[in-house]
Amino acid sequence: MQIIRPTFIVDKQKVLANLWRMQDKISASGGIIRFRPHFKTHQSLEVGHWLRQEGISAITVSSVDMAAQFARSGWSDITIAVLLNRLEIEQINYLASSLNLHLLIDSVEAALWLRQTLKHPVGIWIKIDTGYHRTGIDYEKKEEILLVVKALQQSKKLRFHGLLTHAGHSYHASSLFALKEIYHDTVTKLNVLREYLLQNGVLTVELSYGDTPTCSVMDKFYGIHEIRCGNFIYFDVQQLYLGTCYQEDIAAAVACPIIAKYPQRNEIVIYGGAVHLSKDVAIDANGQKIYGLVAPRHPQAFTWGPIINNTYVAALSQEHGIIKTTPHVLEQVHVGDILMILPVHACLAAHLLSHNTHLVT
Amino acid sequence: MQIIRPTFIVDKQKVLANLWRMQDKISASGGIIRFRPHFKTHQSLEVGHWLRQEGISAITVSSVDMAAQFARSGWSDITIAVLLNRLEIEQINYLASSLNLHLLIDSVEAALWLRQTLKHPVGIWIKIDTGYHRTGIDYEKKEEILLVVKALQQSKKLRFHGLLTHAGHSYHASSLFALKEIYHDTVTKLNVLREYLLQNGVLTVELSYGDTPTCSVMDKFYGIHEIRCGNFIYFDVQQLYLGTCYQEDIAAAVACPIIAKYPQRNEIVIYGGAVHLSKDVAIDANGQKIYGLVAPRHPQAFTWGPIINNTYVAALSQEHGIIKTTPHVLEQVHVGDILMILPVHACLAAHLLSHNTHLVT
Repeated sequence: MQIIRPTFIVDKQKVLANLWRMQDKISASGGIIRFRPHFKTHQSLEVGHWLRQEGISAITVSSVDMAAQFARSGWSDITIAVLLNRLEIEQINYLASSLNLHLLIDSVEAALWLRQTLKHPVGIWIKIDTGYHRTGIDYEKKEEILLVVKALQQSKKLRFHGLLTHAGHSYHASSLFALKEIYHDTVTKLNVLREYLLQNGVLTVELSYGDTPTCSVMDKFYGIHEIRCGNFIYFDVQQLYLGTCYQEDIAAAVACPIIAKYPQRNEIVIYGGAVHLSKDVAIDANGQKIYGLVAPRHPQAFTWGPIINNTYVAALSQEHGIIKTTPHVLEQVHVGDILMILPVHACLAAHLLSHNTHLVT
Repeated sequence: MQIIRPTFIVDKQKVLANLWRMQDKISASGGIIRFRPHFKTHQSLEVGHWLRQEGISAITVSSVDMAAQFARSGWSDITIAVLLNRLEIEQINYLASSLNLHLLIDSVEAALWLRQTLKHPVGIWIKIDTGYHRTGIDYEKKEEILLVVKALQQSKKLRFHGLLTHAGHSYHASSLFALKEIYHDTVTKLNVLREYLLQNGVLTVELSYGDTPTCSVMDKFYGIHEIRCGNFIYFDVQQLYLGTCYQEDIAAAVACPIIAKYPQRNEIVIYGGAVHLSKDVAIDANGQKIYGLVAPRHPQAFTWGPIINNTYVAALSQEHGIIKTTPHVLEQVHVGDILMILPVHACLAAHLLSHNTHLVT
């Protein structure tokens, strides 16, 4: 195995450690919480297979295409956790004919439309907006939510599971305490809604929750029936800066060849740009824009050592990355060496390099 | 043809108009300037074929992989316009065995290394840093540049073409006047260097230039032998904000299904996110971050009308885009409709959606 161009590297031992930590917390939480990790993070049949061997049987994906990909690989219980795209109804009907498929809606109109167009039963979650303001019905609109449930009850093909939320505002939390507050606040809002539905004659209402920042900082979970976090299996610089992981937990990096060194401005240029790392950006403690942190490659393997101090990817163009560093680091690396870049957003880098990924097992 | 998910749409008539405009300016510039457009923008064999039919025979690419892809499609005169990645020497030797391949270096060390490892002749450009400070030898280091030429002359396999620069700082120019100044400044720096090399016994020194912002605003070119711009065939919001194109010139858009409307906050949510548009961002006249502008789809085709006022992609997550708009627009669009998103950076969107592109011919 030789790495000659930007390659997404996954460290299986770290993936499993991250998985086990989350599984242990779920087990320790009492009651039965279904673990349905989000596979948009890795989008890899092989990584999915590792998770299956560890007992995962239900998964979340972020597109109909991704559902089809994992269905072909034997997964049979899949939630497509974006709002229904009506234009893909033909593909949805095809998938629903052979697997346990779950969809998200947030309007009576969508329920009525599905009633007309679905050919096979699917599970339905109502998307609730608990504060992120991307999609979903505002959690305060209880009556509107009840109307959607009633619309669903008019069709046997539409199996109402419950209420689903993504507390994506957790990515902007200012502290670990604030993250725990978001969990508490979100779960409270969902449970108030659940009580309301139960009191209005709805027989069962599950609650589906999941984002890596809050799930990573909670020691135990309560008040929910399902967890859908995904990024936690890799983590990344974004999570590191949030404080939701340690650098040792980061399980994926992009191996990039050095193509130039410029000691006069303390810069290294790597072959590795926006088409490999994505332009997602993090802001470090000094207010500096960061497109990735840098670690040394282990001499004999494609794993990596501790993050190099005072060294970061400061700019990206289509194929190039510019690393700002120190004279000391510049002396130690050479054109033709590989540097390991810890991505700001592992999900996007995994997607960009899905055709060029190396799994260290 | 039905569009059901985010799809990159290319309008051939606009591509050809953009190409012809640049070709006309080159023709009008007197002397013979080689046009070697950068194919990293489209990365499409079919779009490449359109350009071939219009007389293009020499091309620029941004990776060894991309060179191989276009070589298989019959292109035989290719410059890989990133600094040599030594780890890909085997692939480079393979390509050089059958085509007219040109590489970039910026050190004596690289020249000596190539002398040892190359098996077939290649053309060599020395990368000059004329102010962008990404890669290249600083234009003031005349003696160092002459030493690289002399190192190249020690091997018959290394055919020195001349000096190549990318004035990428043009993307931060504040006015069209400033863009013309960058052209003038860059060409002056290159010609001073060229004179120096000629006076020191180098027999021929060509100058290769090319970035879309400056090439788009110049009416005529002077002082160069080759032009390599690429983005101009599509243009995008970045170029529109720079003032280097009109909105009518933008030849590529991403067709995205509407999955939700939120009138209470004047937002439309589309299926179309960071994995389709990229997280590249532009800043509009109000200081607002923009991830794309929005145009209506023509009722009968996959072309589009004028940009919709007061409407823009304000946020992107992996698969979702949030469009900020007006009550008037919200009334006119419906869940299940397609909106056409003009990308901030067409090259990145074209790359992300290379597997899902529709050409309107």
